[in-house]
Amino acid sequence: MIDFITFCDYTGTFAFAISGIRLASAKQFDWFGAYVVGVVTAVGGGTLRDVLLTATPFWMTQASYLIISALALLFVIAFRRYVIRLNNTFFLFDAIGLGLFMVVGFAKTLDFGFPVWTAIVMGTVTGSFGGMLRDILINEVPLIFRKDIYALACVFGGIVYYLCMQTALSVPMTQFIAALSVFLMRIISVKYHISVPVLKGDSHYIDKKSIL
Amino acid sequence: MIDFITFCDYTGTFAFAISGIRLASAKQFDWFGAYVVGVVTAVGGGTLRDVLLTATPFWMTQASYLIISALALLFVIAFRRYVIRLNNTFFLFDAIGLGLFMVVGFAKTLDFGFPVWTAIVMGTVTGSFGGMLRDILINEVPLIFRKDIYALACVFGGIVYYLCMQTALSVPMTQFIAALSVFLMRIISVKYHISVPVLKGDSHYIDKKSIL
Amino acid sequence: MIDFITFCDYTGTFAFAISGIRLASAKQFDWFGAYVVGVVTAVGGGTLRDVLLTATPFWMTQASYLIISALALLFVIAFRRYVIRLNNTFFLFDAIGLGLFMVVGFAKTLDFGFPVWTAIVMGTVTGSFGGMLRDILINEVPLIFRKDIYALACVFGGIVYYLCMQTALSVPMTQFIAALSVFLMRIISVKYHISVPVLKGDSHYIDKKSIL
Repeated sequence: MIDFITFCDYTGTFAFAISGIRLASAKQFDWFGAYVVGVVTAVGGGTLRDVLLTATPFWMTQASYLIISALALLFVIAFRRYVIRLNNTFFLFDAIGLGLFMVVGFAKTLDFGFPVWTAIVMGTVTGSFGGMLRDILINEVPLIFRKDIYALACVFGGIVYYLCMQTALSVPMTQFIAALSVFLMRIISVKYHISVPVLKGDSHYIDKKSIL
Repeated sequence: MIDFITFCDYTGTFAFAISGIRLASAKQFDWFGAYVVGVVTAVGGGTLRDVLLTATPFWMTQASYLIISALALLFVIAFRRYVIRLNNTFFLFDAIGLGLFMVVGFAKTLDFGFPVWTAIVMGTVTGSFGGMLRDILINEVPLIFRKDIYALACVFGGIVYYLCMQTALSVPMTQFIAALSVFLMRIISVKYHISVPVLKGDSHYIDKKSIL
Repeated sequence: MIDFITFCDYTGTFAFAISGIRLASAKQFDWFGAYVVGVVTAVGGGTLRDVLLTATPFWMTQASYLIISALALLFVIAFRRYVIRLNNTFFLFDAIGLGLFMVVGFAKTLDFGFPVWTAIVMGTVTGSFGGMLRDILINEVPLIFRKDIYALACVFGGIVYYLCMQTALSVPMTQFIAALSVFLMRIISVKYHISVPVLKGDSHYIDKKSIL
């Protein structure tokens, strides 16, 4: 099971790095800048998690993550034309990474002795913060706030994780089911255009400070 | 006095969360995204303070802050039409929160053994960084850099805190006076349009790197 | 040699603070906001490095950095008209700061027991993250991703540092050569318009999520 998780972890890293590099290339970043965006997308969530847990960020003692991101850059450069047609494949990889990263963040937070609700939050941070950083770096309003169900799929998966913990399921099976829940929630919400209602606002709010 | 501070802390959290949620709704965020912006606005300053102090962020062991932010979301959803008319009320809450958060940040930093000037900086960070994050998340130039006196009111309050520490005043009285100073400074600067002079620049500066 | 490094460290801080304050003034920030941008530009890289190393950020126990940034603000206010003509001088200072900050970050990371490749990454973070934060605060796409060789010069200097470590060179000489490499790489790339190839993208990528 550890091998399977490592496989998914690296697959998720690759998919997240690709997603960052593709968006950076759409903004005419140079290769190095695109690599940085790819790395940040892939390791950003886990880094914030580790900083909040006051732990050493995972990628600082393990070169694999930077190497996988470099491979993702070479992949995009080499297969530029074909990459665009592989949208669905990458979307699936990204959803797998989201589920796996959530599980990793959830488990690590429990290991550090925090309560379940903190683990849910940290699992969500691990899964979705990298994509948020990516959008800030390329100066877009983070997509996760406006499209589909993304971070919320992690919250859902975290709740499933907690519920499975109350049963006799083994740890690997619990983690598999939780990751699968995130994955399915993400796929279903995109496929059937399920989204959280928009909070209808009023642009007058923006000027609130000038009123007193 | 601890109860009074807790009351103000929660009130400030509620007001800051509302401010984030209102601005997010003006940008058409969905409910979940608006909730995230609300939470970040409310706990962002204290989180950066705790990370810089290498302490565990306060909200990770205390669910109250996430719950209060959820109440703020429900409040905005339920009273959407009326919220806009309550501008002044929320402005006051926000200013109370600013003062209280500054005091909490100042005191915690001194507790960790840092000098007074560090406490002033950390008090200011605690009070104002959440609002800065909020503006970055909704992709606006942070307002605190261009309008009224905001972060500077925290610096002023921090100096007042330090001056009161030199007297025979009790700790709660010192904290009350410091928070009140921030609050009044903020109110007065908005009411009488007092602001820090703009640093007149020249857009040529932007191109500086191309000259050598 | 320690005095020389301190001199360069302070010079780099001054130059980075000036760069932040000048760009903030081009965006009509007020004096306090410009000061904040200046401080963030000057200490941002080292702060992220220290947070990732789970160390107390260097400027929290040493007031010099905030004081130097204040002097930079006064300098810009006093010599507003002349500052623009000093572009080349400041460009040189900035490049010196970049080299020195990279060396400081590299050495500190090795001291904490991390491998060489982590030290290269952290040296690059120390040198270039402040400028990235500056661009995010003033709501621009970070320039380092689109112009010249900037962060990459730090990577190059880190590799030079590592190669020198394999020789009999003294530590100060190694550090001097590494900083000089960054400096020269930066100057040469700007002077001869050397840049990393742009990763040609396709804006269709942006819409990738809607395809499934």
